[in-house]
Amino acid sequence: MTFPSPLTGVVPPVCTPLTPDREVDVPSLLRLVDHLVEGGVHALFVLGSSSEAAYLRDRQRRLVVESVVAHVGRQLPVLAGAIDMTTPRVLDHVEAVTAAGADAVVVTAPFYTRTHPAEIARHFRLIAAASPVPVIAYDIPVAVHSKLPADLVLELAADGTLAGLKDSSGDLAGFREVVTGARGLPRFSVLTGSELVVDSALALGADGAVPGLANVDPHGYVRLDRLCRAGDRERARAEQERLCALFKLVGAGDPARMGGSSSALGAFKAALHLRGIIDCPATAEPQVPLSPEETERVGKFLAAAGLL
Amino acid sequence: MTFPSPLTGVVPPVCTPLTPDREVDVPSLLRLVDHLVEGGVHALFVLGSSSEAAYLRDRQRRLVVESVVAHVGRQLPVLAGAIDMTTPRVLDHVEAVTAAGADAVVVTAPFYTRTHPAEIARHFRLIAAASPVPVIAYDIPVAVHSKLPADLVLELAADGTLAGLKDSSGDLAGFREVVTGARGLPRFSVLTGSELVVDSALALGADGAVPGLANVDPHGYVRLDRLCRAGDRERARAEQERLCALFKLVGAGDPARMGGSSSALGAFKAALHLRGIIDCPATAEPQVPLSPEETERVGKFLAAAGLL
Amino acid sequence: MTFPSPLTGVVPPVCTPLTPDREVDVPSLLRLVDHLVEGGVHALFVLGSSSEAAYLRDRQRRLVVESVVAHVGRQLPVLAGAIDMTTPRVLDHVEAVTAAGADAVVVTAPFYTRTHPAEIARHFRLIAAASPVPVIAYDIPVAVHSKLPADLVLELAADGTLAGLKDSSGDLAGFREVVTGARGLPRFSVLTGSELVVDSALALGADGAVPGLANVDPHGYVRLDRLCRAGDRERARAEQERLCALFKLVGAGDPARMGGSSSALGAFKAALHLRGIIDCPATAEPQVPLSPEETERVGKFLAAAGLL
Amino acid sequence: MTFPSPLTGVVPPVCTPLTPDREVDVPSLLRLVDHLVEGGVHALFVLGSSSEAAYLRDRQRRLVVESVVAHVGRQLPVLAGAIDMTTPRVLDHVEAVTAAGADAVVVTAPFYTRTHPAEIARHFRLIAAASPVPVIAYDIPVAVHSKLPADLVLELAADGTLAGLKDSSGDLAGFREVVTGARGLPRFSVLTGSELVVDSALALGADGAVPGLANVDPHGYVRLDRLCRAGDRERARAEQERLCALFKLVGAGDPARMGGSSSALGAFKAALHLRGIIDCPATAEPQVPLSPEETERVGKFLAAAGLL
Repeated sequence: MTFPSPLTGVVPPVCTPLTPDREVDVPSLLRLVDHLVEGGVHALFVLGSSSEAAYLRDRQRRLVVESVVAHVGRQLPVLAGAIDMTTPRVLDHVEAVTAAGADAVVVTAPFYTRTHPAEIARHFRLIAAASPVPVIAYDIPVAVHSKLPADLVLELAADGTLAGLKDSSGDLAGFREVVTGARGLPRFSVLTGSELVVDSALALGADGAVPGLANVDPHGYVRLDRLCRAGDRERARAEQERLCALFKLVGAGDPARMGGSSSALGAFKAALHLRGIIDCPATAEPQVPLSPEETERVGKFLAAAGLL
Repeated sequence: MTFPSPLTGVVPPVCTPLTPDREVDVPSLLRLVDHLVEGGVHALFVLGSSSEAAYLRDRQRRLVVESVVAHVGRQLPVLAGAIDMTTPRVLDHVEAVTAAGADAVVVTAPFYTRTHPAEIARHFRLIAAASPVPVIAYDIPVAVHSKLPADLVLELAADGTLAGLKDSSGDLAGFREVVTGARGLPRFSVLTGSELVVDSALALGADGAVPGLANVDPHGYVRLDRLCRAGDRERARAEQERLCALFKLVGAGDPARMGGSSSALGAFKAALHLRGIIDCPATAEPQVPLSPEETERVGKFLAAAGLL
Repeated sequence: MTFPSPLTGVVPPVCTPLTPDREVDVPSLLRLVDHLVEGGVHALFVLGSSSEAAYLRDRQRRLVVESVVAHVGRQLPVLAGAIDMTTPRVLDHVEAVTAAGADAVVVTAPFYTRTHPAEIARHFRLIAAASPVPVIAYDIPVAVHSKLPADLVLELAADGTLAGLKDSSGDLAGFREVVTGARGLPRFSVLTGSELVVDSALALGADGAVPGLANVDPHGYVRLDRLCRAGDRERARAEQERLCALFKLVGAGDPARMGGSSSALGAFKAALHLRGIIDCPATAEPQVPLSPEETERVGKFLAAAGLL
Repeated sequence: MTFPSPLTGVVPPVCTPLTPDREVDVPSLLRLVDHLVEGGVHALFVLGSSSEAAYLRDRQRRLVVESVVAHVGRQLPVLAGAIDMTTPRVLDHVEAVTAAGADAVVVTAPFYTRTHPAEIARHFRLIAAASPVPVIAYDIPVAVHSKLPADLVLELAADGTLAGLKDSSGDLAGFREVVTGARGLPRFSVLTGSELVVDSALALGADGAVPGLANVDPHGYVRLDRLCRAGDRERARAEQERLCALFKLVGAGDPARMGGSSSALGAFKAALHLRGIIDCPATAEPQVPLSPEETERVGKFLAAAGLL
């Protein structure tokens, strides 16, 4: 389908349900997609960090895009991550996900290597030149260990290299600089990756949000988005605070036993499993699974948020 | 060929020559391999960081391993990097490089994701269980943003998960802890990834070295290795200092224009080109090429080291 | 004077004007204080990071507090930083600044040492036990290299150790966790240290702001505070955006020649000098002074903001 | 006494024994000094990181220098740390410690502030210009969060600003660059701050070592220094490995309960207490004390090293 310009609203980074032997569980994935569409989301982002893209083999990545596009590709735009270390490898993913039907690609700065802003600019330009679909920059310093400078993003927005920014940096001041600077570029979409300050981001002019927690509670984020657009700041704040309380489920896993990805992604999947949306809460290797007690903790957060 | 146990000596991480349009230049690659073999190196490590593995497409990675194994696989052990973000993706590379003939695989901790020592241990155990060849851990915090703890390495050495360690952490004290702790494990190989303290590493008991600069001057590192093994510490130190002076070529690129990978890998390739070993000094995208002046600077370092 | 509970509104971290030979320029300091009071600010924070507290000798620190308290101590609360590496040294500063008349002290986590949340809690508890005035925690990871965890702040707020938080971490989501968690603690004051998202911080429930830029434009921040409290979100956003544009003056210094403190503090002082408020724009050693061209750049930002 | 030029040998950073109420325990301090002198050390470094300088009040710092200088100032050179955030504050410490009799001062890069190499150079030049005694640079990135670049150190060595370097960076390759570069500067002293690679550092040309563990086992480090100078590399390595095994006592404290400073400094003091040299193992606030079990663990390391 035609990619909206700018893209606005709630764009969940779709979790990738797995079978117990760590293959993509397509029926669960499609049920999750239905759950999101029914919740009113405005687009889908597959193969992002919350999708465990970093853990999926190439054939699994392809299967995810093909399955989701075939299922809802006519209803909703489908963005796909093309997450890899450098330009040539990203280009191979761009080719694969667009062949599979993605309407846009989402690309980070290079990682693993020691990079430089000039190289990051070159990276995005080469990818945009080769991509048949719009390119959205993905600013995620916790993963790639560099921050996209606001002036670089705005330069690449102005010259048409980038169609948008998904900002998972946690730096609202830098995000605001892009939002404000992109006012003269009405087709450029500025999206926050935060779960916790979506109301703030929309209030200062963001186009939308890409919250991982929207997998668990799409209705909540869609409600929040509507309240913000309607200018009902008080009810927006209350809804945001309910979602902030729910988000604490990402800390369910014991940090002495596992890393942050295991805990957060494990909790999202445990919640989807407890809500009956996916068949199995398994996360990809080498992540450590939540224990029964940790899963129970997730359930308590769901209950407190009225989701069980 | 049978993988030596332990692996010792000089094991260059082989640069990957590219054509001007960034395809693997196989004739240049084989000339480089001949240059290294003629220099007396003890094994070859392809698809490491100095090989630009992070920049090579999967089909290019496969071509490198196949070409090198076909050319010298009967003479020398060929180690291959299986560099990717997480266990499932690394396993696909392990399958590919061993199908292409690699004698051992070299694997980092997970990256991009927020990981934990328990997950790193799980990662190496799953890979070792699936790999048909020995697994060598690659400790490179500058790239993966976590450090392999010495006690974890020793635990995985003791239970047979790991056949060796390539330590590019720059932390000689931590390296020593592994060297000392592995004395009771005679088949475990402890290799330094440093160019600059090979003499120190060998003096405290390391089995060998994997210096990127050995692409440029394999004879120097082989000489250094022999002097160390012969106990001729003074001449070893002099040789090491000559190589330290040469190593400054990695700073040839202007840090205002490019990142550290562009400068260092660009300088290695410029040196190989100036020495007439490879046809083209191009590095992979999005790296910034050295300017003529920067290349000239590389030439001066070569001349000063008696290599031009 | 009695310390307000909670403290609300605009609390500028007061710059410390210096003479050309780097002594405290008391007349300029008092003119700056008058400018701030005339601008309508609600309290003053001396000896913070923007005050160059890290650069001031103990006798200079004392002189600053005494001078400001004597000048306006009956009109406005005066908070004073007690910035040092560890508990015993901070306690000496607490004694000095309270003897000089400070109404509250502002204290960071320990730095230089390798610390731990348990030690940070112990630090604040020991200081609160000894301090005759309220203690406000200062969360500034860019300086002290650890982040105050929200749950720790809330624990210390609940048990009465802390009277408030000044958050200069840039992490609005973590800030929100404290704001929300402190709702049941009406005497605890939550202040943002940001210049750029004051409107967002107040909208989610913050009590006030401590923006360094309020030295240059106190009227702007006081206006912003009033618009936010009046619920006039659109005009608040416009005022905030004007201040964001002005804040870019902190980048006036060339990063190839100087560090971020030199540039930002130098620009604040250049602006105060250009506006005729202080006699000399000198910053403390070893900071690099702005060049005439860089100072001219500061002037352009002032002119664009209608402040010249 | 005249400061040796260059300073060579073993220079322990002297622990500061405290009474149970955290005052300097002068009798224990002098017993510790006697123990070090009797062990054969070549100079003493008071008010370093291992001395808990970051935790000592100014009057305590002064008392330490005065007491040690009065006790052994005619026998041995006494170096004193002047550890503080910026130039003006460091200058006050320089004045205090030299008035108290220090023969040299040891100074880090600025910290807390966002600094720059140009500012670091300015910092050392201003301090050297004002100091009546030689200035030694202290490279300790774990505390100050910047690394002294080798070329900057060499520049400041060549122009006479610095009389030496104490390198606690853990980066032996960078250390080597200074050692090699300073060969033409025979009066400049290059000292490693490592406990674990003293043999390596001396082998590549270092002048001496400043190991915290030498508080506990001065005889061991003096023996190691002698073996290295005698060229007896095998016995030097064995002695170094014995000291490496002993050094593991710094991990006695549970990292879930305390930070690295509490554990390491607590273990040094517990060892000195167990050996009967100091009266009380207390560390300064807010450090967490070792538990009886953790202290017992320290005792086992001492016993294994033949020190109990």
